[in-house]
Amino acid sequence: MEAYPRPMGKLIGELSKLPGIGPKTARRLAFYILGQSTGEVKNLAEALTEAKEKIHYCSICNHLTAETTCSFCRSPERDQDVVCVVESPKDVVAMEKTGEYRGLYHVLHGAISPMDGIGPDQIKIRNLLPRLKDEIEEVIVATDPNAEGDATAMYMAKLLKPLGVKVTRIAHGLPVGGDLEYADEVTLSKALEGRREI
Amino acid sequence: MEAYPRPMGKLIGELSKLPGIGPKTARRLAFYILGQSTGEVKNLAEALTEAKEKIHYCSICNHLTAETTCSFCRSPERDQDVVCVVESPKDVVAMEKTGEYRGLYHVLHGAISPMDGIGPDQIKIRNLLPRLKDEIEEVIVATDPNAEGDATAMYMAKLLKPLGVKVTRIAHGLPVGGDLEYADEVTLSKALEGRREI
Repeated sequence: MEAYPRPMGKLIGELSKLPGIGPKTARRLAFYILGQSTGEVKNLAEALTEAKEKIHYCSICNHLTAETTCSFCRSPERDQDVVCVVESPKDVVAMEKTGEYRGLYHVLHGAISPMDGIGPDQIKIRNLLPRLKDEIEEVIVATDPNAEGDATAMYMAKLLKPLGVKVTRIAHGLPVGGDLEYADEVTLSKALEGRREI
Repeated sequence: MEAYPRPMGKLIGELSKLPGIGPKTARRLAFYILGQSTGEVKNLAEALTEAKEKIHYCSICNHLTAETTCSFCRSPERDQDVVCVVESPKDVVAMEKTGEYRGLYHVLHGAISPMDGIGPDQIKIRNLLPRLKDEIEEVIVATDPNAEGDATAMYMAKLLKPLGVKVTRIAHGLPVGGDLEYADEVTLSKALEGRREI
């Protein structure tokens, strides 16, 4: 016999699909949610669907946005002569946390990985090229410090240097084999500071 | 400057309100959710609102149900002569896990706690009495093994014994001061087995 009604089981099932949420945590969350007011539960449900519906990629840099372009591409206050290339929107958040970077971004949504069959055409590298016609003087490659990030950085250097743009990569002050997203602000600041031309 | 668009910030904020979900976990979940298909996100959002809308208390025993009465009260397969009184629906789940109990339930949604101003009228004890007119021979009190659970058990013994019904309490095989919900199945089975009249 089911110990709780079907909609409860369904909710627990859906919550269990989230990363890091096991069946016990899902049950605890489900009971907590049932104890909330209808308005509070509605807020959470709406935040979910609204985020999914409204958020898409910036038409210029591929970062997340609810408008046509993201807040970075729209801002006149950002340095317009430098673009930082990252693998994911999470990395933009990490870069912003350093408080050291004031330029623009370009989000690749992946990294080159021949092992996984991911080449330059499978990541969002193409719409970076039209941007370089403008006032961009430097492209800072801030891909993850691992094999895929290295391969992507190498590819970008080869692609962009003939266009006369300076291509740099943030220093390996980051622990090698790690994930940029989880670097602490100080390490990431140091890495940004120690960037060198590739 | 906001590192991500407003609907994303709102989603992270809503997720952070859940118990045990800090800002970092909320961000990780939000990014994961954005990476899911629209259908998958809709399923989660609908499971939330549906659970909240459809689930209420069983009119007989106060357990959670999406119908008028819960699956235990409806089932002819459950022993109709014994009622197990618990503090919360989570405790029903814990009791069912033992696989030893085949009777009915009554969920108090709380325990008597004079310190917190919670008396017998603040918990759902009243609709237990009409049930005892029928074929109920024994009421097993399975409140938590702490001060509030003890007080509740004592009150129920005083209330029910004059009605000629046998009132027992599950044994303190459970660690005292703990929470019934987190007891392992074996301990809970032992406690059920060693119940004594009060």
